Amino acid sequence: MQFPDLPALAAPELAARVQHALDHKTKPLGALGRIEALALQLALIQGVARPALREPQLVVYAADHGLSRRGVSAYPREVTPQMVANMLAGGAAVSVLARQQGLALTIADCGVDAPLAEGAADLRLAPGTADASAGPAMPIAQALQGLNNGMALIERLPGNALLLGEMGIGNTSSASLLMQRLTGLSLQECVGRGTGLDDAGLARKLGVLEQALQANASALSPLEIAAALGGFEIVTMAGSVIAAAAARRVVVVDGFITTAAVALAEALRPGVLAACVFAHRSAEGPHARWLEHLGVRPLLDLDLRLGEGSGAALAWPLLPAACALLADMASFESAGVSHRD
Amino acid sequence: MQFPDLPALAAPELAARVQHALDHKTKPLGALGRIEALALQLALIQGVARPALREPQLVVYAADHGLSRRGVSAYPREVTPQMVANMLAGGAAVSVLARQQGLALTIADCGVDAPLAEGAADLRLAPGTADASAGPAMPIAQALQGLNNGMALIERLPGNALLLGEMGIGNTSSASLLMQRLTGLSLQECVGRGTGLDDAGLARKLGVLEQALQANASALSPLEIAAALGGFEIVTMAGSVIAAAAARRVVVVDGFITTAAVALAEALRPGVLAACVFAHRSAEGPHARWLEHLGVRPLLDLDLRLGEGSGAALAWPLLPAACALLADMASFESAGVSHRD
Repeated sequence: MQFPDLPALAAPELAARVQHALDHKTKPLGALGRIEALALQLALIQGVARPALREPQLVVYAADHGLSRRGVSAYPREVTPQMVANMLAGGAAVSVLARQQGLALTIADCGVDAPLAEGAADLRLAPGTADASAGPAMPIAQALQGLNNGMALIERLPGNALLLGEMGIGNTSSASLLMQRLTGLSLQECVGRGTGLDDAGLARKLGVLEQALQANASALSPLEIAAALGGFEIVTMAGSVIAAAAARRVVVVDGFITTAAVALAEALRPGVLAACVFAHRSAEGPHARWLEHLGVRPLLDLDLRLGEGSGAALAWPLLPAACALLADMASFESAGVSHRD
Repeated sequence: MQFPDLPALAAPELAARVQHALDHKTKPLGALGRIEALALQLALIQGVARPALREPQLVVYAADHGLSRRGVSAYPREVTPQMVANMLAGGAAVSVLARQQGLALTIADCGVDAPLAEGAADLRLAPGTADASAGPAMPIAQALQGLNNGMALIERLPGNALLLGEMGIGNTSSASLLMQRLTGLSLQECVGRGTGLDDAGLARKLGVLEQALQANASALSPLEIAAALGGFEIVTMAGSVIAAAAARRVVVVDGFITTAAVALAEALRPGVLAACVFAHRSAEGPHARWLEHLGVRPLLDLDLRLGEGSGAALAWPLLPAACALLADMASFESAGVSHRD
């Protein structure tokens, strides 16, 4: 598979120039904390000293999972198409937030087990993945098609910012499996309660996921791992992340599932992580650990665990704020403000 | 002094109704985390099941401090009027953020040591407080006037949300003194580096503040404490907080200084805290401890330590988002989404 080249997202000279501008704004040195780091990151992603965001796109990647027939979720499988319909009708959290924040919303059906919903983008690979506890979730060819679909979607969407969302009953299971294989942490450290499993449900989930790891022990390369343990929405999203980073678009990462897509993208195309802003630390147990493992700090920590892109949408206003501060704040010189004693 | 009565901000029946609505939205129970708690708080502040925010007002309360002549700040005293001018000219962080977020911005001069700037609201008590290390920062009558000024300002401003900001070289010193006296914690636990003191500066600040506590040991009631250790901006802001809470306006608290005003307001008129949303945990050392002492959790934790209201402005979008989610998300029934297994 040919992935696009990434631009140089680390540019020491540009970084020094932006840092100099930040340090001379009318405020104590570093007083805007992580907003300053965010402004610098956005400048480096865009490769300009004055980043600006336009036409942000929130994409919800939706698909079904073979594993959802194995009792790994608190919700039944049919909730995936029901929630897709709810998102399209404007009643889901992500619909409300996208509307309210001025984010264009695309629902990308990557393989929901129901007919294509009117208004959804058709990126369907099949009506749900195979049962990963019995073998690969999808053939390699399908994973490649998903990556290509995700990359092609970015070419069709305008703007320079991609906010990641997802929907798929069972997809915390796929994310946990990918986390285990990509980080090498124990399966226990990679599994949470998803939409709200009780203790018995959690034990059942762990047992099924243990089977899936054994059934796919021979998957070693990032592409093999993607096919063996991925969901259609996660693999497609990984393709979009790669294409977005290659096009100098900022990628706003939501919670646990979208982190799986980004980690998979990073394994497939090292360097994409530099284009990613992590919106929040999810209350889904293993997410905090994965963020640490990736060496990233999220912007928000509000005990969110909904997914859909809701956390990305909630954090979004911080990005244009960071750009505005970098562009529009006066310097000590221009404002005639005295320096420190 | 007559403070206005507070409405019943804790209303169990309304709280139960709002919680029921939140619990039936199309999301796993509690999955929007602290945004759900925020929506509930806004409903209780407004006393309605569907809170809505209109014409939010960011007010920067500015004043000078006698203590700033004692070397307690990294910046010289003249920076207060310079930054007021910068705010009015649109170049300060708070100006940029207010513009970008659609917040009306008022700069209230509560006693800056310079002529009234054009465009600032005249709430001036005197050109800076007296030196609190030698006695009370202001007479009781001036503190009462400040409280009245702050209450009257709220009556003049439209809307139902007040975002607190401040400017005043030396005002972390006043806030630290108020924190010590209101919480009973040790002075060391209440003092930080402000705009960036080095170790020697911090030691000097501690020494001066120790003198101020000794010189004002006889101040015992909240009003006496306000007069002895307050700044004009802090006392005026406390009046605004009381008036806002009484009028069922939400108060968005910024960092360390605005927390001092809110804590003072709570001491003067117990109950106002229920109307306050804490925007962020400041990197100014003692702020986190004070929030804990007050039993509140802020929304953001982004290492901000600028003040001005910048943190309140950055957190602001979460409030209309919480209102929109409560008002516009579908329920499982209305959207035809299956319940959990």
